[in-house]
Amino acid sequence: MTTTALTEHDAMRRALELALRGPRHGVNPQVGCVLLSPDGDVLAEGWHRGAGTPHAEIDALSALEVPALAIGATAVVTLEPCNHHGRTGPCSVALIDAGVARVVYAVADPGVRSAGGGERMRAAGIHVESGLEADAIDDAIRPWLTATRHRRPFVTVKWASSLDGRAAAADGTSQWITGPAARADVHRRRSEADVIVVGTGTVLADDPALTARDGSGLAPHQPAPVVVGRTEVPERARVRRHPEPLRHFTTHDLASVLAELYDDEVRSVFVEGGPTLASAFIAAGLADELVVYLAPTLLGGPKTALTDVGVGTIADQRALRITDISQLGDDIRIVARPGDPSPSKE
Amino acid sequence: MTTTALTEHDAMRRALELALRGPRHGVNPQVGCVLLSPDGDVLAEGWHRGAGTPHAEIDALSALEVPALAIGATAVVTLEPCNHHGRTGPCSVALIDAGVARVVYAVADPGVRSAGGGERMRAAGIHVESGLEADAIDDAIRPWLTATRHRRPFVTVKWASSLDGRAAAADGTSQWITGPAARADVHRRRSEADVIVVGTGTVLADDPALTARDGSGLAPHQPAPVVVGRTEVPERARVRRHPEPLRHFTTHDLASVLAELYDDEVRSVFVEGGPTLASAFIAAGLADELVVYLAPTLLGGPKTALTDVGVGTIADQRALRITDISQLGDDIRIVARPGDPSPSKE
Repeated sequence: MTTTALTEHDAMRRALELALRGPRHGVNPQVGCVLLSPDGDVLAEGWHRGAGTPHAEIDALSALEVPALAIGATAVVTLEPCNHHGRTGPCSVALIDAGVARVVYAVADPGVRSAGGGERMRAAGIHVESGLEADAIDDAIRPWLTATRHRRPFVTVKWASSLDGRAAAADGTSQWITGPAARADVHRRRSEADVIVVGTGTVLADDPALTARDGSGLAPHQPAPVVVGRTEVPERARVRRHPEPLRHFTTHDLASVLAELYDDEVRSVFVEGGPTLASAFIAAGLADELVVYLAPTLLGGPKTALTDVGVGTIADQRALRITDISQLGDDIRIVARPGDPSPSKE
Repeated sequence: MTTTALTEHDAMRRALELALRGPRHGVNPQVGCVLLSPDGDVLAEGWHRGAGTPHAEIDALSALEVPALAIGATAVVTLEPCNHHGRTGPCSVALIDAGVARVVYAVADPGVRSAGGGERMRAAGIHVESGLEADAIDDAIRPWLTATRHRRPFVTVKWASSLDGRAAAADGTSQWITGPAARADVHRRRSEADVIVVGTGTVLADDPALTARDGSGLAPHQPAPVVVGRTEVPERARVRRHPEPLRHFTTHDLASVLAELYDDEVRSVFVEGGPTLASAFIAAGLADELVVYLAPTLLGGPKTALTDVGVGTIADQRALRITDISQLGDDIRIVARPGDPSPSKE
């Protein structure tokens, strides 16, 4: 471990770095923890590696050279230590039992069953503070926080279009509108999601594999394929050969689809189209994030990447806040969230 | 004048700066000229201020403290000195008569009547070189060069749309899709163009004034309004009260519209829509530059910013090379040209 003393602020930045080592997908959030001596020396670090593995606090406590080092120490942790018996015991109790004197966390746990760790530790005499670097950490684990707060998966809607908003030429041809860098980005995002959702129209038209690939083949984590729509998925559809089992919802009630997925521990959904399904998620107010790839080309014609998003008149427009604009090869990637374009100016 | 000696390269960069002080609109190009002593000292500078005023070379020669300083000097000029009697005499002859020993220009004059200045000066014993900083200067005066080479005005097609490519909501409402920074940018570009072109549909639907405004009111240069389409322009249309006279073409043959405008000394055209006219310019291969403002909003529905651009199948897509991506307030401005997205990779 480093012998340079850290401020709690620096320790929290470090805890965030550690958190991001864990998987983005899955039912549990990315959490990092740094244990500091009263002098600010780093005693141990930990992070969560996914459901079924120790939480970050337990991971850090286990990394101590001797358990007694925790006595009087400060735990700096990105998320409020949990307070419930899941696959593991409550982290709040573990920190109390270890003799930690002080706990600093960034973001409160919004979970119905898991929250309350802060209160419990306070009641046990630990000095508890919260809110340090909360914005950065809220942003980093926003999908999980959103899912937990709304009790439905975080929904990312992705599409690729020409600069004029078309997903295909008039005859439906669309292969390789975007270039390799954009396609690699899509595969990376697929591998961070719990499931990929497409409409039956897309299955019939494009027969996508819906796997996540990286440079060397199938990515280590595969999002499960989900198809929404009343049409049957053909026996020979490639999506049936996906490494994860296919799930087919024959309802068009997207809220109920998300509720069922949430009950099955799905926390992040990557909607890949087609235009009708993507538009339906937006129209229903169920799109938490948009990832749009604009290819440097014009197509014109009827094959728009979105169809009806429920906007009849300009006052009902679906305003967005753009959070990132990047060039990926020749393409432009725009990431946006629903909401006021520049809330800070209000 | 500065007493620091300049390299010819630096002098050409300076000449470009001077050139850009002149107006972008109008029948003449932006040109700058720096006269250097044999030691590289700047003797005089000049630039062209628009049709009817001296060319840059003459402007620089006039700025000499005494005319004899030109004897043995080097003229560094962004464009090949002209060789024809227009509103002014040939610059090639003026440089010969002044006793200049050396002329370095960046870009050859593509004009049918004006070219040949380099040859004439060479024949008179002047040492003539060309090509220095040619790419930067070609880029800076591309509209004029394109117009002169193709003998038709340079065409910029502009549109504003939602991120999903709609110019309006389903009911046609569209006021203020883009914000004030994007609108100010449009007005600046209008003031750099010779004419603004709209379709009769836009005149009837939006009744635009088509003036160029800046912070304090009407901009000093007003592009003349041009309407294309068979429908009559209503007597009370605002475009009829434009400071410049309205021109109405009742043909849909855009090449002939451009040819007529060129014969009237129009060198740059700013096409402001609507969707049908913008798409027709693109479909005809007559769009030299696209300026697209993407607002952070989704509209969906039938009111696409472009309609049919002549692409039936993906192999016929209108590939673009993106030359600039900027954020203007909450909006994104994308500037592109027709052509291969990344020619350098070929």
